Amino acid sequence: MAYTVGIDFGTNSVRSIVVRCSDGSEVGTSVFNYPSGEMGILLDPKDHNLARQHPGDYLLGLESSVKEALAQAKGEDSGFSPEQVIGIGVDTTGSSPIPVDEKNVALATKPEWKGNLSGECWLWKDHTSIAEAGKITEMATEHRPQYIAKCGNTYSSEWFWAKLWHCLKVSPDVFEAAYSWVEFCDWIPAVLSGVNDPKAVKRGVCAAGHKALYAEDWDGLPDKEFLSMLDPKLADLRDRLYEKAHDANEVAGFLCDEWASTLGLQSGLPIAIGAFDVHFGAIGSGVDEGTLVKVIGTSTCDCGVVSASKKIEDIPGICGIVKGSILPGFYGLEAGQSAVGDIFAWFVNNVCQGNGDTHQELTKEASKLNPGESGLLALDWNNGNRTVLVDPLLSGLLLGQSLHTSQAEIYRALIEATAFGARAILERMDEYGVETKRIVCAGGIAQKNPMLMQIYADVTGREMLIAGSSQACALGSSIVAAVAAGSAQGGYDDFVSAQKAMTTLDDNVYRPEAKSQAVYDELYRLYKKVHDAFGGVKVEDLSEVMKRLLEIKKEVS
Amino acid sequence: MAYTVGIDFGTNSVRSIVVRCSDGSEVGTSVFNYPSGEMGILLDPKDHNLARQHPGDYLLGLESSVKEALAQAKGEDSGFSPEQVIGIGVDTTGSSPIPVDEKNVALATKPEWKGNLSGECWLWKDHTSIAEAGKITEMATEHRPQYIAKCGNTYSSEWFWAKLWHCLKVSPDVFEAAYSWVEFCDWIPAVLSGVNDPKAVKRGVCAAGHKALYAEDWDGLPDKEFLSMLDPKLADLRDRLYEKAHDANEVAGFLCDEWASTLGLQSGLPIAIGAFDVHFGAIGSGVDEGTLVKVIGTSTCDCGVVSASKKIEDIPGICGIVKGSILPGFYGLEAGQSAVGDIFAWFVNNVCQGNGDTHQELTKEASKLNPGESGLLALDWNNGNRTVLVDPLLSGLLLGQSLHTSQAEIYRALIEATAFGARAILERMDEYGVETKRIVCAGGIAQKNPMLMQIYADVTGREMLIAGSSQACALGSSIVAAVAAGSAQGGYDDFVSAQKAMTTLDDNVYRPEAKSQAVYDELYRLYKKVHDAFGGVKVEDLSEVMKRLLEIKKEVS
Repeated sequence: MAYTVGIDFGTNSVRSIVVRCSDGSEVGTSVFNYPSGEMGILLDPKDHNLARQHPGDYLLGLESSVKEALAQAKGEDSGFSPEQVIGIGVDTTGSSPIPVDEKNVALATKPEWKGNLSGECWLWKDHTSIAEAGKITEMATEHRPQYIAKCGNTYSSEWFWAKLWHCLKVSPDVFEAAYSWVEFCDWIPAVLSGVNDPKAVKRGVCAAGHKALYAEDWDGLPDKEFLSMLDPKLADLRDRLYEKAHDANEVAGFLCDEWASTLGLQSGLPIAIGAFDVHFGAIGSGVDEGTLVKVIGTSTCDCGVVSASKKIEDIPGICGIVKGSILPGFYGLEAGQSAVGDIFAWFVNNVCQGNGDTHQELTKEASKLNPGESGLLALDWNNGNRTVLVDPLLSGLLLGQSLHTSQAEIYRALIEATAFGARAILERMDEYGVETKRIVCAGGIAQKNPMLMQIYADVTGREMLIAGSSQACALGSSIVAAVAAGSAQGGYDDFVSAQKAMTTLDDNVYRPEAKSQAVYDELYRLYKKVHDAFGGVKVEDLSEVMKRLLEIKKEVS
Repeated sequence: MAYTVGIDFGTNSVRSIVVRCSDGSEVGTSVFNYPSGEMGILLDPKDHNLARQHPGDYLLGLESSVKEALAQAKGEDSGFSPEQVIGIGVDTTGSSPIPVDEKNVALATKPEWKGNLSGECWLWKDHTSIAEAGKITEMATEHRPQYIAKCGNTYSSEWFWAKLWHCLKVSPDVFEAAYSWVEFCDWIPAVLSGVNDPKAVKRGVCAAGHKALYAEDWDGLPDKEFLSMLDPKLADLRDRLYEKAHDANEVAGFLCDEWASTLGLQSGLPIAIGAFDVHFGAIGSGVDEGTLVKVIGTSTCDCGVVSASKKIEDIPGICGIVKGSILPGFYGLEAGQSAVGDIFAWFVNNVCQGNGDTHQELTKEASKLNPGESGLLALDWNNGNRTVLVDPLLSGLLLGQSLHTSQAEIYRALIEATAFGARAILERMDEYGVETKRIVCAGGIAQKNPMLMQIYADVTGREMLIAGSSQACALGSSIVAAVAAGSAQGGYDDFVSAQKAMTTLDDNVYRPEAKSQAVYDELYRLYKKVHDAFGGVKVEDLSEVMKRLLEIKKEVS
């Protein structure tokens, strides 16, 4: 029997799982919560946009979670022993760049940078570089439209260059001290492989292509002339980054002696190229051409693939279309919603001042409501809009409140808003010829909230399938590791056969109900008007909105 | 020493006060909570628009509150005895029409109509007749534009004819059984005077002019031809209503023996013409030409007067301009906001699931915020818009929410929304040449919430004065009673001298602060855009709204 280890670094914790290659079953699992900051995130009370993370936490979590998962596997599966592990796969959040020194050591783990937030990992949800992202969009639109076309014509404050540029502006000392910057998902495989030169770190095309404007079409990263227009120091840095990024047909490295001994695994195990959690989540949920995988969590990430042999248009508002970023031989498409579970959590925690039970109570109440019965309509923009408007400066909206509007009605309206946002993404893909034949949802919310899934089916008018694994990202990492190891070792030689053997679907299928669908079609029409009006798509006559909501409320109550 | 009794029938309770005529001081007071329904209101769980009240509660409350106020006065003021009461004044909510029989007995107090909600008093806030109000607006606009011009070109579902017509449609049995309909504020003085013929009830011009399309210009109530267009039965009813309505230069009647003995007062005391609570509240707050009185409570009512010798234009969106409705010899102007305290109560009770203490906690937190710091903007339409859009089919809106927005920020945004609504009313009056030199605020919220009053001053850019009496409406009734009695009895012969002697101002004055005013000017500009866009005033480009709010938030934080 062969096994792989999949390691999934999330926003608040890292999870390691041990998976049997023959059928994808999970025989050991362990979660480690990052100890620093608030739920693992370093915050600045004066700036809500700031979100950093301590790389030292990653190393602690890597050791602890892998060792515990292996120990658990020994107990769970009598056939298992650590010698049977044939490979390791890693996924992380992103774009989460880490400033490192000449030895690939994270600055933040060195005593001299202790306590300096700019020296830490710049977590994906850090939005301090909104101004820089805007400027990059502007400059690229003018001087390098081809760069920006691949990422929906808008560069995001969540991404690599905006973050580095912001660091250069606000903490020039950190920027100067950093020999290079490595994406979180590239850094962990490099650490495991014992790579101690940033230029030797094998970078994945996923992070490079989706967040750092990398493409083979224009010789890799943005050219120096362009970077100089932003700041000459960014152009200088280019030489200390990388020339080529790799897809999952290659391995990132091989387990070094030191980490092999720390983890109790064999030296020299292949370590797969690292990628973003949702991309490996898509693999663990069975992504293939025609299948859209929605990983629904605090935010939502939508992943699809299109054969690299096809001609694919740039799609306005779709964050990224990158060759090889999900599966080798396919364009990887990424879209998403900046806040989904986060919006529900905000409402429950900040507005209702409730707790975990409140979610269940509100869900119970909200599920008694008919579509349209609340009379409410919301926009899902509390954390900006990632797709299709790509604008972090948008914010939440709720309308239709009376003097009787209840918590549960608002809760449901917020869920519906995220479903409308999901529909806007699907429609945009349709418009540009990317056909979605099947939708597979993964992530905790998809598995635990049938009301939400039914609303998604009714609003989009499409069947919602659920991924069989509750740890789709970690499972995806295990699958990539099995392919990195190859069939000779008990793994697989290609992704199609690995996914076929190692992924499953849940028995639950959510199908649209005609009556609800009809009401939601009309509510979506109103949502789209408000969306377009506030999103700057077009000027809309909004005078019917509140009246129509009242009429619908009457019709369905 | 001479005294009068002022009786103020509010939405949930009736308050009687005994007032010394020489200086307006309150020597006795008593409150009686209506015992029926929920906090005195009869509701229909299936229809949030329905709000009725039991006239039997009014009679119980009349007896109880007057007797207790007199008893308290005896204890408080050694100079007082009931023989020194020289007159009675009454104000009530409205338009709150009551169906009565041939003897002026309220149908609902008769056993055969027990439990029939249509037979009760149709409380001002009953919105069941939205469809009828819309039809009256339509028909009047086409056939009798002069009728509708006086009430802001829109007839409201809160008003007399809409309610009667709705009753005729949904409960024809009640409509048939009603010999006539009497406004609550006319009914109580008639009951006290022992008037047992509805046609002999002296109706006040306040209710008639503001709510029943009555004007001397067109021979009183709407003509039969017009009423027939609505329903011939409404035209028939006209003969059993009234031909002339009276201002406060006349008395409604004289205390009958029966009620004199019940209350322990002298028979034959003059009873002033009844009016709506806020109109007498305006008198009790010192209304005169150039002074706008804002009675701020669950909703807000704005009252002003303009000399009847002046030519006054119709003002679009201002609910009513009626000669003599507040002070004889002046046009009374009424504007208002359908929900103010009700919006804060909704947020605290329904959304935060808090209680009275929550208001104080949120006020404390919200007062730490700078204008613009929340990044939020709200519309004050949870109960529709009374002025200047006159549209009950509008609803609430909140925008600018992030994932960090707090309860206190929303609470403050809702207060600000009501202040913006107040400014819209002031600007409309200015536009049409009704100058406001002084604003006096009355009502519990004005007296108890300095943060709210400061926001009102900052948003409107005007000084906010506070009425000296915490019971401005009841005090107004006492003043009207003192004028009805006349100086020979120890009262007054005119309103100017009565108001001068009997009303005061609070020492607190809220003055606009330049810095806050500047921020609010900009926020009001955005409010106005959203207001006009959703209110159907004009199509607006809203793409700047969310971005501008974020910029302001940054500037002021």
